[in-house]
Amino acid sequence: MAPKSDIEIARAASKRPIQEIGEKLGIGSDHLLPYGHDKAKVSQDFINGLDGRPDGKLILVTAINPTPAGEGKTTTTVGLGDGLNAIGKNAAICIREASLGPNFGMKGGAAGGGYAQVVPMEDMNLHFTGDFHAITSAHNLLSAMIDNHIYWGNAEQIDIRRVVWRRVLDMNDRALRQVVTSLGGVANGFPREAGFDITVASEVMAILCLAKDLSDLQERLGAMIVAYRRDKTPVYARDIKADGAMTVLLREAMQPNLVQTLENNPAFVHGGPFANIAHGCNSVIATRTALKLADYVVTEAGFGADLGAEKFMNIKCRKAGLSPDCVVVVATVRAMKMNGGVAKADLGAENVEAVKAGCANLGRHIENVKGFGVPVVVGINHFAGDSDAEVAAVKDYVSGQGAEAILCKHWAEGSAGMKEMATRVAEIADGGESDFSTLYPDDMPLLEKIETVAKKIYRAGSVTVDNKVRSQLREWEEQGHGNLPVCMAKTQYSFSTDPTRRGAPEGFDLPVREVRLSAGAGFVVAICGEIMTMPGLPKVPSAENIRLNDAGEIEGLF
Amino acid sequence: MAPKSDIEIARAASKRPIQEIGEKLGIGSDHLLPYGHDKAKVSQDFINGLDGRPDGKLILVTAINPTPAGEGKTTTTVGLGDGLNAIGKNAAICIREASLGPNFGMKGGAAGGGYAQVVPMEDMNLHFTGDFHAITSAHNLLSAMIDNHIYWGNAEQIDIRRVVWRRVLDMNDRALRQVVTSLGGVANGFPREAGFDITVASEVMAILCLAKDLSDLQERLGAMIVAYRRDKTPVYARDIKADGAMTVLLREAMQPNLVQTLENNPAFVHGGPFANIAHGCNSVIATRTALKLADYVVTEAGFGADLGAEKFMNIKCRKAGLSPDCVVVVATVRAMKMNGGVAKADLGAENVEAVKAGCANLGRHIENVKGFGVPVVVGINHFAGDSDAEVAAVKDYVSGQGAEAILCKHWAEGSAGMKEMATRVAEIADGGESDFSTLYPDDMPLLEKIETVAKKIYRAGSVTVDNKVRSQLREWEEQGHGNLPVCMAKTQYSFSTDPTRRGAPEGFDLPVREVRLSAGAGFVVAICGEIMTMPGLPKVPSAENIRLNDAGEIEGLF
Repeated sequence: MAPKSDIEIARAASKRPIQEIGEKLGIGSDHLLPYGHDKAKVSQDFINGLDGRPDGKLILVTAINPTPAGEGKTTTTVGLGDGLNAIGKNAAICIREASLGPNFGMKGGAAGGGYAQVVPMEDMNLHFTGDFHAITSAHNLLSAMIDNHIYWGNAEQIDIRRVVWRRVLDMNDRALRQVVTSLGGVANGFPREAGFDITVASEVMAILCLAKDLSDLQERLGAMIVAYRRDKTPVYARDIKADGAMTVLLREAMQPNLVQTLENNPAFVHGGPFANIAHGCNSVIATRTALKLADYVVTEAGFGADLGAEKFMNIKCRKAGLSPDCVVVVATVRAMKMNGGVAKADLGAENVEAVKAGCANLGRHIENVKGFGVPVVVGINHFAGDSDAEVAAVKDYVSGQGAEAILCKHWAEGSAGMKEMATRVAEIADGGESDFSTLYPDDMPLLEKIETVAKKIYRAGSVTVDNKVRSQLREWEEQGHGNLPVCMAKTQYSFSTDPTRRGAPEGFDLPVREVRLSAGAGFVVAICGEIMTMPGLPKVPSAENIRLNDAGEIEGLF
Repeated sequence: MAPKSDIEIARAASKRPIQEIGEKLGIGSDHLLPYGHDKAKVSQDFINGLDGRPDGKLILVTAINPTPAGEGKTTTTVGLGDGLNAIGKNAAICIREASLGPNFGMKGGAAGGGYAQVVPMEDMNLHFTGDFHAITSAHNLLSAMIDNHIYWGNAEQIDIRRVVWRRVLDMNDRALRQVVTSLGGVANGFPREAGFDITVASEVMAILCLAKDLSDLQERLGAMIVAYRRDKTPVYARDIKADGAMTVLLREAMQPNLVQTLENNPAFVHGGPFANIAHGCNSVIATRTALKLADYVVTEAGFGADLGAEKFMNIKCRKAGLSPDCVVVVATVRAMKMNGGVAKADLGAENVEAVKAGCANLGRHIENVKGFGVPVVVGINHFAGDSDAEVAAVKDYVSGQGAEAILCKHWAEGSAGMKEMATRVAEIADGGESDFSTLYPDDMPLLEKIETVAKKIYRAGSVTVDNKVRSQLREWEEQGHGNLPVCMAKTQYSFSTDPTRRGAPEGFDLPVREVRLSAGAGFVVAICGEIMTMPGLPKVPSAENIRLNDAGEIEGLF
C-alpha cells in the first residue's frame, strides 16, 4: 500500500474542539474567539492579562540553505512541539500563516507534512481567519487615501512621481506589477505609474508581525513613508490620517490564531511576512503569548539560517526583547547530497562522499548560529531512502564541528520519532547555556551593519555599494533612522548572491543594488539581487485543477 | 438627556451566545460554525438536510423612492421581525451584508437603527465573516488567470481589447476605475486597458446570491463571459478553467451567516449585490434556509420598490421558485413631504398639504406591488417630529388606494412599537390572499421585457433603444439567452431616469444606453443612466476620523 499523502493524513486527523486545545494552555473559552470548531483567536484582553508571567524557553528551528530536495523546517517544528509534549513537557509551536495567492500557482504548501502537521490544513491554505484579507484591506485603504488626497488638492504636496506606497493583492498576478492608474479623465484623478505587490510583501504585514500591541501597531503604521515631496521630504501615513482606520481594520487580525497539531497540541499560526524584503517570522504577539502560556515554545524562521535565523536574531529578538535558548538546524541527507553536487534525479542512490562534501553548508550555519551565543543541535529530518552510512556521515561531520546531530523520524512516526531530539532540546534549553547577543549594536552605522552581516554570516570578501546607496544611508542616519537593524534581501539558495553556488562559498563580492526604508516596521532593507514582490502564475496554474469533489472535499490544492 | 445613538444602543445590547439564537431555529451547535461568540455560519450539511420541509411565509419589505430624509427599510425589516416574535410567532429576518469600502468614505451604515438593529454592528460594517473578501479573491483569481492565459500563448485567442472581466476591490478607489496593466516589458504580459469595480458590483456576488448550492454556483461561475475573441464569440470562465478554484474559494462564503437583533431574534445576513447592475437582494440560500426554519421570514430588497421589489419578484423569486405572501411598503412622513416638494431643511415644520402631494409616489408603488398579485400593507416609519395630522394624511391616502397604512414605532420602542403591524402582516400572510406572478414570462423577447418594466412599473411613455442595443439583444437571443429576465440599472431616486423628478412622473422617455449580459448570474442588464461601479472617497473621508479609543472601541465608523 502506498504511504498516505499529507492531505489524507490531515483529513483522517482526530481533531479536538479548539476550546480543549485552549484549555491545555489555560485559555478559557470566553477568551477564545472561535472561527469554526477548529480555529480560534486568543482575545487581546486575555493577552493583556499575561504581563508579568514568566516566559517559557524559546527554541528556534532553522535550516541549511534550501534545495529542491526539501528540508522540512516546518515539519520539524511541528514534530519537535509534539515530541516535547510526548515527553511530558508543556509545549506550543509558533509558525507563519500561508499566503493564499501562491496556492493557485504551484501546489499549496501544507503546514508540515506526514505525521507532523498542523490542521485544519485546507483552511490554513485558504482564507484561514481572514488576517491576510484584513492586511490587504488596510494596505489598500491607505493607497486609496493617498490618491484621494492628491485628487482633492494635494495639501501635503505629494510628488506623484514619488509615491512609494503601492497596492497589494493576495494573488499571483504579474499583470499588476506595473500599471498606470487614474486614467479616464478629471473624475478619476491624476494619471501616474503605480503597481501591486502580493500581500505578504506589504509593510503592514511586517508591522503586524513586529508590533507589541494595538497602540504600537498604530504608531508604526503612522510612521510608514508613503511618498516624497518635490523637495524629497517624506510624507508619512499619519500625514494622510490613515493610521487610525487601518488599525481598526487590523484589530481582529492582531489577535494570534490557535489551531492544533495532528497530536492535538497547541499551535499558534500568525502572520507571514516575506523573508527577503521583510524578516520572515511569525508575529511577535504570538511568540510572546505562547511564551507566557507554555514552558517550551518552538518557532521557525524563513529560508535558511543565513537569512531566517539572522533576521530572527537581529530583527525580531532585538525588537521584541526575546532571547532564544536553543537553535535546531534542520538538514537532510538528500540536501547534503545536492550541496555535494548530486542532481535531483540521482538523489535515490547512496553517495556518502557527496553527503560529506555537502556538509560544508551545514557547518557554516552551525558556526553562524553559535556566533549568536545560542547552543545548536542539528536535526536530520529522515527520509525513507537515507542509508545508515549517509546518516552516520552527517552525524560525524557535526560532531567534528563541536555540535550534535540527532536523527528525527517525525514525518513517519510523529512524536514517537522525535523523542530523542525533544529530550535533548529540553535539556539544552533548561541548561541555561544560551548567552544570546545580536550580531551588531543598534548604534553601528547602517552600512557597517550590512557589511557585518555580509562578512560574518555570508563570508563575502567584499561588499559593493555605489555612491547613491551610500548617500541614501547617510541621509537616513541624519534623519534619525541610523539605529535601525538591516534586513537583507538576497537569494535563499546560497550564501552568495548567486543561487547556483551551493555549499559554503566565501570571498565573493556582495553587491547592494538598492536600499529601502521600512520606517514603520523599523528596518532598512538592503537589496542584493532580483527580488520579486509580485509572483506570476505558471503555464498550467494549479488553480485549473482545484475543485470540490463529490464528497465536498477540496482536490488539487495539495 | 439626548436620545442614544445607534452605536450606543448597539453597544449596550445584551447579546446572547449565537448558539442560543441557533437553537431558536432548531440548529444544533454542531451545525453552527461560529465566528467569535456572536456570529456563525449555518453549515451546508445542515442546510442539505432541510429539503422537503415546508416553507414559512415570506414577507418582503420595500419602500418608496429613497430621499435624503431616509425611509428606514432595514430598520422596518428588523422591527417587523422582532414584532412577529413579540406576538409569539417564530420569525427570522434576512438582510444583506454591508460593503466594507464605503464605510471609509461616508459614515458607515448601521444594520437598522434605534431599537431595531442587528448586532454586532461593528463587525457587520467591517470584515464580518469574510464573505466579501472571499468574493474579491475568487473574482481576482479569474482576472489573474485570464491575463496568465494570454501571457502563456493565448490558446483561446482572447482579443485583449475585448476582455470584459475587470478586477475588484472592496474599497472606494477612483484611481482604479481605469488603468493600463501589464506594463514594464515582456515578463509582465501584454499591456491592455483594464479597471477595477467595487466588490459588490462583481458578477460573482450576484451569482453567490442566486445559486442554490455549490454545484449550481460552480456551473454559474463557469458560464460567466470574461472576454470575446476577434470573431466576437464569447470566452467563458470555464474556458479559462477557473470555475473549480473559484468555487473552492467561495465554499465557506456560500453558507449563510446568522446573527441576532437587539431583541435576540435570529437574523440571517448574507450577500449584498448592487441593486442597479445586479438584483440587490440577500442570498437565495439564506432566504430558503430561513423559510425552512421559521414560520415567517421578513426580508428586504434594495432601493425603492420600482427597482428593489421589481427585481426581487422578477429575478430572485422567479429563479428561486419563491412566492411572497405579503409586501410591506415603507414610507415616512418626511419622505412624503420631500416628494411633495419640501426641502430637507424645512422638514421640521408640519405641512399636511405637502404630505398629501407627495403620497403620489407611495401610491404608484402600492399599485405596482399589487400588480404582482401580492397583498400590500404600508408601514409608516415614525419620526419624533411627525404630527398626527400628517400621519393621518398618509393613512387616508393609502385607504383611498385600497390598502392599509400602519404607524410603526420600532425605532423608538423596538417590537413594542411594531405589534399592530406584526399582527396584521401575520394575518395577511396566513390568509393566503397572495396570488403571485412575475411581470413577464421567460419566453418574452428581451426588448419586450425591458419595455414591460419601463411602462408597467416606471410608467415611461416611450423607451429609446438604438440599433446597436437592439442587435445586441437579438444576438443574445440567438445564442440562447433570450429566456433570461432583465435587470434594470436606473437611478433609485425617481421612477424616471432623472433623479430630481420625485413624486409619480409618467409619460417620460426611458433611454437604454447599453446592455450587458451577466450570463452566470442569469440576467441581462439594461443600463438607463450613469452607473458608477467604483465609488470615490469624499474630500474628508470618514476614514480620517475612524480609530480605536482608549477603551478599545471603534470611533468614527458610525
